[in-house]
Amino acid sequence: MVDQVHARQYAKFEPPERLLLGPGPSPVDKRVLAAMSAPVLGHLDPAFLSCMEDIREMLRYVFETNNRATLPVSGTGSAGMEAAVVNAIEPGDEAVVCISGYFGERMLEMVDRAGGKPTVVRSEWGKPVELREIEAAVRSTRPRALAIVHAETSTGVLQNLEGLASLAQDSGALLIVDAVTSLGTHPVAADRNGIDICFSCTQKGIGAPPGLAPITFSERAVDRVTARRTKVQSWYLDVTAIRRYWGQERAYHHTAPISMNYGLREALRLLSEEGLEARWRRHKLNHRAFVAGVEAMGLQMLVAPEHRLWALNAVRVPNGVDDARIRNRLLESGIEIGGGLGPLKGQIWRIGLMGFGSTRENVLLLLDSLQRALAAEGHSCPPGREAAEAVYRHSELPQRPQPH
Amino acid sequence: MVDQVHARQYAKFEPPERLLLGPGPSPVDKRVLAAMSAPVLGHLDPAFLSCMEDIREMLRYVFETNNRATLPVSGTGSAGMEAAVVNAIEPGDEAVVCISGYFGERMLEMVDRAGGKPTVVRSEWGKPVELREIEAAVRSTRPRALAIVHAETSTGVLQNLEGLASLAQDSGALLIVDAVTSLGTHPVAADRNGIDICFSCTQKGIGAPPGLAPITFSERAVDRVTARRTKVQSWYLDVTAIRRYWGQERAYHHTAPISMNYGLREALRLLSEEGLEARWRRHKLNHRAFVAGVEAMGLQMLVAPEHRLWALNAVRVPNGVDDARIRNRLLESGIEIGGGLGPLKGQIWRIGLMGFGSTRENVLLLLDSLQRALAAEGHSCPPGREAAEAVYRHSELPQRPQPH
Repeated sequence: MVDQVHARQYAKFEPPERLLLGPGPSPVDKRVLAAMSAPVLGHLDPAFLSCMEDIREMLRYVFETNNRATLPVSGTGSAGMEAAVVNAIEPGDEAVVCISGYFGERMLEMVDRAGGKPTVVRSEWGKPVELREIEAAVRSTRPRALAIVHAETSTGVLQNLEGLASLAQDSGALLIVDAVTSLGTHPVAADRNGIDICFSCTQKGIGAPPGLAPITFSERAVDRVTARRTKVQSWYLDVTAIRRYWGQERAYHHTAPISMNYGLREALRLLSEEGLEARWRRHKLNHRAFVAGVEAMGLQMLVAPEHRLWALNAVRVPNGVDDARIRNRLLESGIEIGGGLGPLKGQIWRIGLMGFGSTRENVLLLLDSLQRALAAEGHSCPPGREAAEAVYRHSELPQRPQPH
Repeated sequence: MVDQVHARQYAKFEPPERLLLGPGPSPVDKRVLAAMSAPVLGHLDPAFLSCMEDIREMLRYVFETNNRATLPVSGTGSAGMEAAVVNAIEPGDEAVVCISGYFGERMLEMVDRAGGKPTVVRSEWGKPVELREIEAAVRSTRPRALAIVHAETSTGVLQNLEGLASLAQDSGALLIVDAVTSLGTHPVAADRNGIDICFSCTQKGIGAPPGLAPITFSERAVDRVTARRTKVQSWYLDVTAIRRYWGQERAYHHTAPISMNYGLREALRLLSEEGLEARWRRHKLNHRAFVAGVEAMGLQMLVAPEHRLWALNAVRVPNGVDDARIRNRLLESGIEIGGGLGPLKGQIWRIGLMGFGSTRENVLLLLDSLQRALAAEGHSCPPGREAAEAVYRHSELPQRPQPH
């Protein structure tokens, strides 16, 4: 007899429509949602294998790499981070970990759990890590890995990657880059930047639902993993085994998330239609318009102009305003934005203009909604819309995704 | 300038309709596919939190457990296996691993990578592991974990779980059970069987696409993980952290695969409508009819009648017949079945009648199609349909999913 305590009947789940302008997931195009409801195939079906090939090739385009070992890990962005760390690090390996926010801390935690010996280079939250401090750490510890976050989702900071590859190569270190929030929104240029392992997610710049973690390994990284003295501690994330399925052998490893891969393929197809450079320009323009708007409202950005992400805007919560109450008011009007993490909890709002969410309409709607929410909480400020529109008037860049 | 080498334009992906009668994924109901294309919510949206609660409660129903720590891991079934192993095992821990096929070997590999000291109890592929041999291994090594596969997908063997809980408890071991192919098709009865950690997947008995791994931890298992001397080696799969998100705290850990959870919820809702016991009876009946059919065709089952899974039928490839050619012929007619793994490669077909795929129509269609494919390969045999229909005539059990 089955215990009937948990045998309840449930109504159909009808999620409300939300405009996703937080740190991710970002809005998903209807074409992507429709792709996910296509008939499920077996993970070794020839038709699915061709879908996998297309995904690999489009990921090479968006990572800007020729790496053969380019594929989506069957987990979310954090699984991609863990895959990068546990494949690169063996117990006892020295590693330099650069930390400018929450996700750098996460990478440190993973290096620690992989048995690595981390040397940490920190910056204040809201600022990038200084190259000369990284250089000093690398020269003094001769690490096997140098790990850094390209786009720190907790602060909105873009980290300059110049100079890191030569530092890493001189030391014999693999350069590991977290591109979770930059891929598809900023140039990542894995090959030109000499990145050895670069990982991301599907639910930000790519514009698919969360569930997969695109990752790419340079030949140098693959050689390093192949030559390990110890097994990769995670069977599930061992890239030497995963590659045997995603590569020519088609050796069964685990059952790939079929429908998620359909969604990723369609999101990458939309990205290819728009073109990577047009997409970057769109993100940059909408970011600039948004910043002009919030500054006209008297609000302040956390990050200095030269270090700002285009996809994730950290806006300081004005004195006397309750962070969560504003977010709740926006959610009631159908708009999700994010709050701060760690030391920035209650201090900033994290506003994502990512993927399909980076449009003129969303910028203007959000500026208006934010002004209304602030006013309702007793914090009156000038409107931001006009300043944003002025930015658009002086630009001929695309304001929304447009197939070319 | 972006390298245009990989900037190809792709056509829309239109997967062919396949009848999935292999070892999984199993056929997915249209309601489940439709659920996955619903609007994406944020992972901390109150509406999504209620979706998570429903999933947890329905998972308790299907696992037959009251465990609070019941949730879907954000990866496929193998991620569930790894979550079970890395949370339970600390470096140096003794573990007894029972192996009767491919997935037992996988669990051994994971125990090894987690730093455990495994003692292996093996059976011949196609037979269950003997209780008295497990008993001897447990008594001699006093392990911290006893790991066993309930439904060995590589052989079609159902392992009897009786007696294991008291053995494990006497030794201070956690009982870890792989229910990847049994959950939703056979009674798993996590609480009655005294299972401490039980994991499964979404794409077999549950009938959702692959991508999540339902798992449940007894209070005893949670206490053990909480009292570990060392951190869980996987950050991504650390159940103490995952629980803080799926539990009352709602602490951000990783971004849950939103759309996959929609699909899982709808598949579990269909299961709840049918009722767990009706579902088991349906799987049993269609299995019996299928076996009667293949035996009437002169084919042999690999596994002795008393140890057969209802969801996964291992049929011996007749002498002189090329395994892969038959599977290709079936695939050309739109039906996927599976081949053998490891020592059974080329020796058996693995035929899944799982979830929404376990129906009278599919049994009869497959018997006819298999007979035709064999005849086309020069192996004539009598038809199986009549013997199967005779089984249905003598039964009043449900032959297809029916809401009650």
